[in-house]
Amino acid sequence: MSNNLLTDRFAQGEIARGAWLAVPSSISAEIVARTGVDYCCVDMQHGAVGYSDAIPMMQAVRAEGVTPLVRVSANDMAEIGRALDAGAQGVVVPLVSTPEQAAEAAAACRYPPRGVRSFGPIRASVAAGSSEIDALEQVLCAVMVETDEGLANVEAIAATPGVGAIYVGPADLSLALGLPPKYEHDDPTHESSIQRIRKACESAGIVAGIHCADGDMARRRLAQGFRMVTVANDAKSIGAAVAAELAAAVASSD
Amino acid sequence: MSNNLLTDRFAQGEIARGAWLAVPSSISAEIVARTGVDYCCVDMQHGAVGYSDAIPMMQAVRAEGVTPLVRVSANDMAEIGRALDAGAQGVVVPLVSTPEQAAEAAAACRYPPRGVRSFGPIRASVAAGSSEIDALEQVLCAVMVETDEGLANVEAIAATPGVGAIYVGPADLSLALGLPPKYEHDDPTHESSIQRIRKACESAGIVAGIHCADGDMARRRLAQGFRMVTVANDAKSIGAAVAAELAAAVASSD
Amino acid sequence: MSNNLLTDRFAQGEIARGAWLAVPSSISAEIVARTGVDYCCVDMQHGAVGYSDAIPMMQAVRAEGVTPLVRVSANDMAEIGRALDAGAQGVVVPLVSTPEQAAEAAAACRYPPRGVRSFGPIRASVAAGSSEIDALEQVLCAVMVETDEGLANVEAIAATPGVGAIYVGPADLSLALGLPPKYEHDDPTHESSIQRIRKACESAGIVAGIHCADGDMARRRLAQGFRMVTVANDAKSIGAAVAAELAAAVASSD
Amino acid sequence: MSNNLLTDRFAQGEIARGAWLAVPSSISAEIVARTGVDYCCVDMQHGAVGYSDAIPMMQAVRAEGVTPLVRVSANDMAEIGRALDAGAQGVVVPLVSTPEQAAEAAAACRYPPRGVRSFGPIRASVAAGSSEIDALEQVLCAVMVETDEGLANVEAIAATPGVGAIYVGPADLSLALGLPPKYEHDDPTHESSIQRIRKACESAGIVAGIHCADGDMARRRLAQGFRMVTVANDAKSIGAAVAAELAAAVASSD
Amino acid sequence: MSNNLLTDRFAQGEIARGAWLAVPSSISAEIVARTGVDYCCVDMQHGAVGYSDAIPMMQAVRAEGVTPLVRVSANDMAEIGRALDAGAQGVVVPLVSTPEQAAEAAAACRYPPRGVRSFGPIRASVAAGSSEIDALEQVLCAVMVETDEGLANVEAIAATPGVGAIYVGPADLSLALGLPPKYEHDDPTHESSIQRIRKACESAGIVAGIHCADGDMARRRLAQGFRMVTVANDAKSIGAAVAAELAAAVASSD
Amino acid sequence: MSNNLLTDRFAQGEIARGAWLAVPSSISAEIVARTGVDYCCVDMQHGAVGYSDAIPMMQAVRAEGVTPLVRVSANDMAEIGRALDAGAQGVVVPLVSTPEQAAEAAAACRYPPRGVRSFGPIRASVAAGSSEIDALEQVLCAVMVETDEGLANVEAIAATPGVGAIYVGPADLSLALGLPPKYEHDDPTHESSIQRIRKACESAGIVAGIHCADGDMARRRLAQGFRMVTVANDAKSIGAAVAAELAAAVASSD
Repeated sequence: MSNNLLTDRFAQGEIARGAWLAVPSSISAEIVARTGVDYCCVDMQHGAVGYSDAIPMMQAVRAEGVTPLVRVSANDMAEIGRALDAGAQGVVVPLVSTPEQAAEAAAACRYPPRGVRSFGPIRASVAAGSSEIDALEQVLCAVMVETDEGLANVEAIAATPGVGAIYVGPADLSLALGLPPKYEHDDPTHESSIQRIRKACESAGIVAGIHCADGDMARRRLAQGFRMVTVANDAKSIGAAVAAELAAAVASSD
Repeated sequence: MSNNLLTDRFAQGEIARGAWLAVPSSISAEIVARTGVDYCCVDMQHGAVGYSDAIPMMQAVRAEGVTPLVRVSANDMAEIGRALDAGAQGVVVPLVSTPEQAAEAAAACRYPPRGVRSFGPIRASVAAGSSEIDALEQVLCAVMVETDEGLANVEAIAATPGVGAIYVGPADLSLALGLPPKYEHDDPTHESSIQRIRKACESAGIVAGIHCADGDMARRRLAQGFRMVTVANDAKSIGAAVAAELAAAVASSD
Repeated sequence: MSNNLLTDRFAQGEIARGAWLAVPSSISAEIVARTGVDYCCVDMQHGAVGYSDAIPMMQAVRAEGVTPLVRVSANDMAEIGRALDAGAQGVVVPLVSTPEQAAEAAAACRYPPRGVRSFGPIRASVAAGSSEIDALEQVLCAVMVETDEGLANVEAIAATPGVGAIYVGPADLSLALGLPPKYEHDDPTHESSIQRIRKACESAGIVAGIHCADGDMARRRLAQGFRMVTVANDAKSIGAAVAAELAAAVASSD
Repeated sequence: MSNNLLTDRFAQGEIARGAWLAVPSSISAEIVARTGVDYCCVDMQHGAVGYSDAIPMMQAVRAEGVTPLVRVSANDMAEIGRALDAGAQGVVVPLVSTPEQAAEAAAACRYPPRGVRSFGPIRASVAAGSSEIDALEQVLCAVMVETDEGLANVEAIAATPGVGAIYVGPADLSLALGLPPKYEHDDPTHESSIQRIRKACESAGIVAGIHCADGDMARRRLAQGFRMVTVANDAKSIGAAVAAELAAAVASSD
Repeated sequence: MSNNLLTDRFAQGEIARGAWLAVPSSISAEIVARTGVDYCCVDMQHGAVGYSDAIPMMQAVRAEGVTPLVRVSANDMAEIGRALDAGAQGVVVPLVSTPEQAAEAAAACRYPPRGVRSFGPIRASVAAGSSEIDALEQVLCAVMVETDEGLANVEAIAATPGVGAIYVGPADLSLALGLPPKYEHDDPTHESSIQRIRKACESAGIVAGIHCADGDMARRRLAQGFRMVTVANDAKSIGAAVAAELAAAVASSD
Repeated sequence: MSNNLLTDRFAQGEIARGAWLAVPSSISAEIVARTGVDYCCVDMQHGAVGYSDAIPMMQAVRAEGVTPLVRVSANDMAEIGRALDAGAQGVVVPLVSTPEQAAEAAAACRYPPRGVRSFGPIRASVAAGSSEIDALEQVLCAVMVETDEGLANVEAIAATPGVGAIYVGPADLSLALGLPPKYEHDDPTHESSIQRIRKACESAGIVAGIHCADGDMARRRLAQGFRMVTVANDAKSIGAAVAAELAAAVASSD
């Protein structure tokens, strides 16, 4: 057992359901974390979240016993280190296309001799409950396979030591396959690519994760064997929920 | 026609549906404003919003052609002036219990000789599209009747010059009536009090407004003659929406 | 047992040691909270902390299982309500000089019929673990006796229902007594005044608290019967600690 | 000589030229402070500046050897104390209409026995260069006379002990006189009222100050005997300067 | 017609006059945007603007019907994507020296198959008024030619597909030419280099843009055929305008 | 003499004692700067400081006559430029392992023809007191040698033109040597590596600097010939100081 509930879950063969945070506020982060999700991922690639915003958000998430993650904007050693030092207990690294890139992402998460991370765990030691290397290295390195090159290399990526999960970005994967950026397609290429990624993870003994449009899709992905599913994001949720109430207020009759 | 779409609506006998903002972010404010509501009220009484947060929120709301309001924390002349100078096109003033208090709230919204507001419309002139007194005074002064004393004085409050609306706070009104803080009660006292407030507004020719639990309640309040109904708030919406997706993801079968 | 560890401690006759937060950062708040103190009080009277800063600080404090308090800038109902809604599990109210003022402070902490607080517990329900009135009212109302008028009325203030503690501000008390603003004085008037306040609390069955210059003074105050002692503040601590290391670096020899 | 360059100037019979800060940024504050003005006043009444913004602004102003002031939103003891503790070396208090109100403003700036200020000079001691009461009390209390009642009482207000300046707000004074809110008027009542205020200050031996539309007006006011003139504000300056360059870019010929 | 007023202007052969934003405030951004400029560029290379500041600034700019741009700090795919996702309707990319670098900048602005941008248009869809790829790709990719290598390659850079403008940085270009960093020089090399860049743009059918010291220079550049001219920046404007008023206040006579 | 007190000290053969800033607040930065240190380094690699936080921190540091530095997160030209433009008078560049990397770091600090820095000194000119290239280039480029490769190349790194100091990171150096991340070790390899770095600096005529656990270690390092020693960091200081007071308060007897 470690201080990282998410990697502990995965080590025990369990699944995890999470949420995505794009709104730069520790208030909305706290509200989302209290819903009972297993992880909250602060989206620093596409979300409206700067570094100064991300730390209070992760503090609020941790307070609820939920694992804070960060999606970094790039496979960049310094940025990955910044996210982990700020208290993320894992990173989601976009656009990983080769096993070499996957190895770089993994190395950015661990200290020498296993990696290249620089030591200075200002909040990482809070998250890990320790300043010991072993505890600090108990983080999830999830890489995103979402390019055609990445898809071609997915088995090698999945087998890269230190990579704990492959997280599918269905929209970018759509674009890579010449399709519009959606979560699901009638075109069977998209779905078979997703399943290829899942199988590569299973063969390599790592977690298959995927970004989902909603809870219903998440449930179906879990049934397929995905073990890390994002069920909602804050920005879409707030818009949809307010719009639904507005529509109900406009409806002309019972 | 003025630059204040909300007061124009009310002047033309129309209704308005709005949302409440408690999350301190211009991103969530923008998302809520884009749903098609008529007003967004930044809640500086109970919301997690400081003055430094409120201005970008109101800028984002105005950008969508939606009227920004502020609920101030108290019937305080300086705070009301600060909210209007920051670009609110109306204020919601809590806990107004006497016509004298209502007159103070109204005076805080207008310049001498009609009121006591101090001149310095840094963003008020942006919202009003002008620095002329007449345009700047085109703001809504909504007072909340939510104490037993306020209920007893509601007809006189409604008749106070410069008050444009009475906005019912059903939870505080419940507490005033010795009931738990809810939007609706089986106990008929609560509902009859709400209707008394509505009728006082109608007799005085001002707008009756009410805070609603959801769109369904808002629709019912509109049918009763309320003309300013809040259909949702950002904080509750985000929690409910993410929780619903999480529940869908957990459900064991189709 | 409630969700308020501090009032539970006091109900069980225990003491509490705390820290004062004047630096507007959730990082320093988290660091201080992790030292093992029982409460952290965000100082919104003299500290450099605005409302927008205070919320992440209280989120960080709560995450460590430490009780967040706020010292408000004035005995103001709206400001006390804002602090509690933001998640403070108690307020320290400065410059309370009469039992009537004490009663106003107490009323600002509870809902009708016990008080006048307005309902809207956005983060209060997070702190209390509930949205029930009983849980939400489980907050500490500590009033500061630090004027000559307050000192003259201290027994009546201590006996005011709803007041849970009197917290001594030794510096302001010094000024009230015509002394320079210090924590302790050779002049016996200051010390006897402090003991009078303590005894008034003991007679009334409430907690006597006091602001201390350091841990040593706090220990001595505990030995006298004070039950709520602040052992350090963040701003002074950081300056003293860095200065001490700098002095050590300058020292010319071992 | 004290650490307060502005009150020292006034004590030596000198004049001061300053600027008004309404933009919530320490960058613009620094730029304005570097122009050579004697004081920079953070406008917390009409400016877009929250408490969390004001502190870095005052830090930046002080770094340039310029005296930071705050215009508070109201004649409120707690708010005045907050401004001074945050490092303002003086306050400008709006809408002071009676000598009693003037005395309250003055009392809020000094400690007992001279006043009612509470002790806790977190940044006040930085600004004053000392934590001694005498140094901390070396602040300017400027009150604004801008209502008809204030005008009627101006001689008594000027004679109130502890008041160091009366600062004229010409726009609010216009409204008080039934005129549109402008800096100057053809109507002689406005100008004679301004001169009455100036003379009251001269008789009482305090500083007469006035808000000016631009440097030209400031120069004329200095020539009349005003000793504290605000020559520009950041918000208007930026708009005017960019608009002038845009106009120059549009001009059709040399 | 698209939602991007700037690229629409350019498509119709029109010119654009803009302003540069270096002050991290949505208030100053709003003021500048209201002057009537066609674009406002948030300077994240040399400006004092962090990512958390930039979003409210772009929201304020968009509210005025002005096109928000971002100058990124580097030709970095992730940073360009972050700027566009945050609502920039174009990027200005510094220090582009080869057609390969220009192609990388262009690719960062478009999705596969035209580019390499990752999908997640949180505010890009607000700016574009759509989540469709075609609308989202309606952004300006302006590259800066300001090194000697860039100057040597300018014709090939201008001909790079996806590049919509070359924006001249006269100060860096000066340094590249061995001159002090100024907007204009007597030395003819600087001016002939600027004209070479303009002609390369004209031959390639793209927009020639240039950073100007003031409106007068902008007008002269427009007369030469430049079509995108920056007439002012916020930081310089505020300092110059306040300094001018201060000088006027100091002048000894009429 | 320049405006950079730190490089002037070093030019005169003097030593410098400094502090590290990881808490994102201009208040704590000001407190630390006032202790009498020679430099304060804002840690943007491991500290909890975003770009938006760093600028007010550096403004507060400069106000005390202390030299502000930034440790950047990577040897990245754009990030180094951003730090210097924001007013840092030097950068500490982590993980420099080859003379080529050292030359890149040095080039990022100077303008052509000496380097590759882009011109736009928004706050750099404030720090330097001038916009002249010579003044702006008066900055310290300190590179960190903390990898095994860096250690092997240390003599060449020290001899790289434009590098003003090598700053030892003892924790990362420990990891590079197969030791746990500590400041000092019984194992002689660590200490001899540190001394090798110091000697390389002395041979090259540049400054040897080192991160220290406390003032005592700093004093010992100074005695060895190190000339730039960091005696404390804000985050550790605050935790240690509050914990010490808490322990004193808990102690059972005198």
